[in-house]
Amino acid sequence: MSPRQHLQTTLVRSLNPAHRIPNGSSFNHLRFASSTPSGGFRSQSLTRKTLTVAKWGGYLVFSSVVGFVFVTGAIFVHDAFTYSDAHIDRVPVSPLALNPEKGGPKNLPIANVLVDDSEDEEYQKIASKPKLVVVGGGWGAVSVLQSLHAGDYHVTVISPDTYTTFTPLLPSAAVGTVQPRSLVEPLRKIIARLHGHFLDAKAIDLEMHDKLIEIEANGHRMYLPYDKLVIACGSVSSTHGVPGLENCFQLKTISDARSIRRRIIDNFEAASLPTCEPEERKRLLSFVVCGGGPTGVETAAEIYDLCQEDLLNYYPKLLRQQVSIHVIQSREHILNTYSEAIWKYAEAKFSRDGVNLITNSRVKEVHPDKVLFTQKNPDGSFETLEVPTNFVLWSTGIAMNPFTQRVSNLLPNQVHKKAIEVDAHLRVKGAPIGEVYAIGDCATIETSVLRYLMELVDQCDKNNDGKIDFEEWEDMVTKIKQKMPMTEKHLDKAGCRLGYEIREVFELYDSDKDESLTLNELTVLLQEIGNKITALPATAQVASQQGKYLGQKLSKIARQQERHGEKASILQDEDVAKPFQYLHLGSLAYIGNAAVFDLGKYSFMGGLVAMYAWRSVYWSEQVSMRTRALLMIDWVIRGVWGRDLSRL
Amino acid sequence: MSPRQHLQTTLVRSLNPAHRIPNGSSFNHLRFASSTPSGGFRSQSLTRKTLTVAKWGGYLVFSSVVGFVFVTGAIFVHDAFTYSDAHIDRVPVSPLALNPEKGGPKNLPIANVLVDDSEDEEYQKIASKPKLVVVGGGWGAVSVLQSLHAGDYHVTVISPDTYTTFTPLLPSAAVGTVQPRSLVEPLRKIIARLHGHFLDAKAIDLEMHDKLIEIEANGHRMYLPYDKLVIACGSVSSTHGVPGLENCFQLKTISDARSIRRRIIDNFEAASLPTCEPEERKRLLSFVVCGGGPTGVETAAEIYDLCQEDLLNYYPKLLRQQVSIHVIQSREHILNTYSEAIWKYAEAKFSRDGVNLITNSRVKEVHPDKVLFTQKNPDGSFETLEVPTNFVLWSTGIAMNPFTQRVSNLLPNQVHKKAIEVDAHLRVKGAPIGEVYAIGDCATIETSVLRYLMELVDQCDKNNDGKIDFEEWEDMVTKIKQKMPMTEKHLDKAGCRLGYEIREVFELYDSDKDESLTLNELTVLLQEIGNKITALPATAQVASQQGKYLGQKLSKIARQQERHGEKASILQDEDVAKPFQYLHLGSLAYIGNAAVFDLGKYSFMGGLVAMYAWRSVYWSEQVSMRTRALLMIDWVIRGVWGRDLSRL
Repeated sequence: MSPRQHLQTTLVRSLNPAHRIPNGSSFNHLRFASSTPSGGFRSQSLTRKTLTVAKWGGYLVFSSVVGFVFVTGAIFVHDAFTYSDAHIDRVPVSPLALNPEKGGPKNLPIANVLVDDSEDEEYQKIASKPKLVVVGGGWGAVSVLQSLHAGDYHVTVISPDTYTTFTPLLPSAAVGTVQPRSLVEPLRKIIARLHGHFLDAKAIDLEMHDKLIEIEANGHRMYLPYDKLVIACGSVSSTHGVPGLENCFQLKTISDARSIRRRIIDNFEAASLPTCEPEERKRLLSFVVCGGGPTGVETAAEIYDLCQEDLLNYYPKLLRQQVSIHVIQSREHILNTYSEAIWKYAEAKFSRDGVNLITNSRVKEVHPDKVLFTQKNPDGSFETLEVPTNFVLWSTGIAMNPFTQRVSNLLPNQVHKKAIEVDAHLRVKGAPIGEVYAIGDCATIETSVLRYLMELVDQCDKNNDGKIDFEEWEDMVTKIKQKMPMTEKHLDKAGCRLGYEIREVFELYDSDKDESLTLNELTVLLQEIGNKITALPATAQVASQQGKYLGQKLSKIARQQERHGEKASILQDEDVAKPFQYLHLGSLAYIGNAAVFDLGKYSFMGGLVAMYAWRSVYWSEQVSMRTRALLMIDWVIRGVWGRDLSRL
Repeated sequence: MSPRQHLQTTLVRSLNPAHRIPNGSSFNHLRFASSTPSGGFRSQSLTRKTLTVAKWGGYLVFSSVVGFVFVTGAIFVHDAFTYSDAHIDRVPVSPLALNPEKGGPKNLPIANVLVDDSEDEEYQKIASKPKLVVVGGGWGAVSVLQSLHAGDYHVTVISPDTYTTFTPLLPSAAVGTVQPRSLVEPLRKIIARLHGHFLDAKAIDLEMHDKLIEIEANGHRMYLPYDKLVIACGSVSSTHGVPGLENCFQLKTISDARSIRRRIIDNFEAASLPTCEPEERKRLLSFVVCGGGPTGVETAAEIYDLCQEDLLNYYPKLLRQQVSIHVIQSREHILNTYSEAIWKYAEAKFSRDGVNLITNSRVKEVHPDKVLFTQKNPDGSFETLEVPTNFVLWSTGIAMNPFTQRVSNLLPNQVHKKAIEVDAHLRVKGAPIGEVYAIGDCATIETSVLRYLMELVDQCDKNNDGKIDFEEWEDMVTKIKQKMPMTEKHLDKAGCRLGYEIREVFELYDSDKDESLTLNELTVLLQEIGNKITALPATAQVASQQGKYLGQKLSKIARQQERHGEKASILQDEDVAKPFQYLHLGSLAYIGNAAVFDLGKYSFMGGLVAMYAWRSVYWSEQVSMRTRALLMIDWVIRGVWGRDLSRL
């Protein structure tokens, strides 16, 4: 054992006075099998500095970085060193958990009791609570789990992925700026706080009458009973009916990011070969992104950065000349959901970088070696063009996944094509009230006010004259806002709550100027307001807020029911919480070493400063301390050593 | 932009006074698109501490860890911030590099000029140097690359992997103790120092007469000319003719480690399901390792640790009771190449942990759901037994890969079954002298002294009496040792160089006691010495030392040839360097939170202390600072947050 090795060990121990010697085991194991002079090394008293200088020589500065990590980290390591040779306790497991009874419409096993239900006191306490089943493991689901109070529900999470992913940084992972491992957190760790259960399974079908969800796990189907169900299983990519999408990459998961990375490096390697034909080299170095939304734009920007900053140093310079990046966007501008200042900035940056923006164009077909698209000319005519390429990213919007589609088909009043329609309380429309919720990308909040017309008139027409005068209208506005917070800015024209503004809307639609709104006039009014409401975007921010809202509400409901002993009679959501209200905290996108922010009223963008601001925003959104620390480390590493160029 | 965001940005800048504003570009981009009060934030003067306390609240201690990383890291970030909008220079590329001429026995393109040969002055200087082609990217190859002087050769590396892997830690990566990304270093980064070239290709065939190696890259075949060829392409797993190995995992690459990890987590998830039958659960939690060498033992130990330390906290406790780990070993003991003290320690530890050691047993068949093996009973009879399992690791020794096999077949005097035979100068036996070398797992140094009998007698029989007297024997011993250093300890019986010992050997084989050795007596002597030599093990340590030896020698040869203008006449290896001599620095293996060391004369093992010693040894063996830092960080993270349980 060298002095350095010994010192590093004792260093750890001396830093950690509270450190327990684990069951007396590990140290007892230390013995010398032959005549090594073992007495000597304990008396050596090298200081840490001497050691560093003596042994690590030229790496002095470097070692201080890692030294910091190590020394400071060691303080935390505490229990990590308490390795146990502990005996395995006999854990009682309910026979029902090991042999579930069969039942339900399809006579499948019903998982009434789970394997770890009787594991310890905490689990046993929860076993009798109402069953909450969460389908999915993304932003919405995790947000529900994090805002629930521990002990209110018997929680089970169903997801085919065992971890949750920090999706907004997938474009960065795809090019190696951050490590995939820094973007994930095991769901079991998140659920542990709630003493909940995790099933590595896919939701297949729903029996709302029996409150059973059918799942498939490891090739077996079974039912899982629920009292409350939260559907948060996200979406799949919309195909827009384009043929050849099997030739495209998507960017929804870590393994997508990894495949993209591998393909980019593959293309560079193949283009470095002397046998590569010039045309083929151009094709290999042509990267096509279909869709000019944030994912597409960020990926294009990251690919540009990767080529310019990192690959350049290690691949033939010839390649750099021939790299081309193309973004195909159906609208007139990229990032068209952002403010004008932002898309202008992004477009100017891309134009400076030589990124080829193809706007007003729709992808027609994707072939293994090229993309065909139809471009609308300024004169209104259409033209079909093609880009040869060996990399196509498809990121053009969302569609329902099979389970969401199934749920939507089960309910006759579900007509939305891209998501499950929910009311302002996030309850799935048409499902038994207060039992099934949907959040995130797989849900959309209803925008039609008109369907509440009669209900509103009944409530507000106090003098029963079949018309709504201004006083009644003021009352009605309050009621509409309560029911559907999204209507707010359209009822108070300028987003302002003064009576004057309400008056303006009233007068606008009072077409016969009789100081009251007839049913016909109201119909027009509510219809137009409904049309003005834009659905919430399918973003992490929306899913996260919905999850937080829902988690808190579900905990409130559980507590009130318990307090009033109202287990049987269902408490209405309206009794404990207001409808969900989305608070837009701003959008941001990363464009070529710069970030653009859209904060609603304000928007700004910048180079270096904005990028770091952006990164720190992303840090604080992270799920766990572990991933937050990993990300920070990734960025330092990327700063010191550049992006990771391994094709893993 | 929040104060925190701003502060983090300015923090980076203020720490880094030398920081250049990149081409004036990034800061120019910073502008506010609308009425954000931009004047305000620059005047804020929060101290770092205030910030931390105010914003990160409870994460104070944590943030000091990452703060250290970030702050200290920022010092290094220097150039990372110099983002360039640089224009792309026109790089001249030789037309020959883009359209290689065809030729050679198979009329394939010959890559005489590579794409980046004329890139800059450094590359142009090297273009006329002798061509050195290295096949492979493992320990041997990287070690050659690291010990070559820059500028001596036009170096090209051929490897189907773009990175080199720190193989001794693959068992740790397989269970998530370290991140796969920490174990790899892109080959292009290693080659950059030599202004060398990398081709993402596979070696297929060799035309030694024309000094051309045939490679396949991206589906195209081509020739690469060489003056010196180093074969360092490793080995594949030996099948021992066992059917069903497609049901086994191997542990040779990062992607193997990743697949193993995924399977372990999959098995745990499937075993957590309520629909899992008890027998099936036992099978899912049964892990079988075939082979009791270091890889097998370390993997078994890491799986044990993973189950005991990390999975336990997040999976039903029932699973922990049912986990079983089996190691099947053909010999009587595991780690049988180590000293007795070490295998005894390892076996005792496994027995304490309940790891099932199945010794004296050969695997017969591997099925998707079980392993059949034949066990030799103490009475000499054989018995066929089976273990149900859903995870089998195959690590029972090495065999030749297709290219090595092909090279071996091309040379009639190559008879070794597991590797290419080389002489003590690491030259492939039978290939044109001084042109083809082989190192690492794919090579084995010849052990037959007998074949040099006549050559030795010619040189040493000074009185030409057809016999060797003691004086001539002393001379011969020196010559044999020079030729084959591995004979040393067998010629000086006790590994000692005193004349007395040499005398002893002489007398032992002088059967007719006439004070001289006849040809017959010499034949017996050399034959027996040859039999005593054991081939070097297929380890990273051997490959690494061979690579270092070869790299230094090749540089010496290049310089001497240049100095003497002897480009045409080939300088012999013997003229510049002694034969390769292996220096055993000790073996070590990691067994259940403990490491065992075998240092030749000494051996010791221990719990905690040894483990940390082991880890620091591994650190200092690392290829690059980057991976060294990453590993250190991984271990701290593993200490703080446990192993990574995501199934990525």
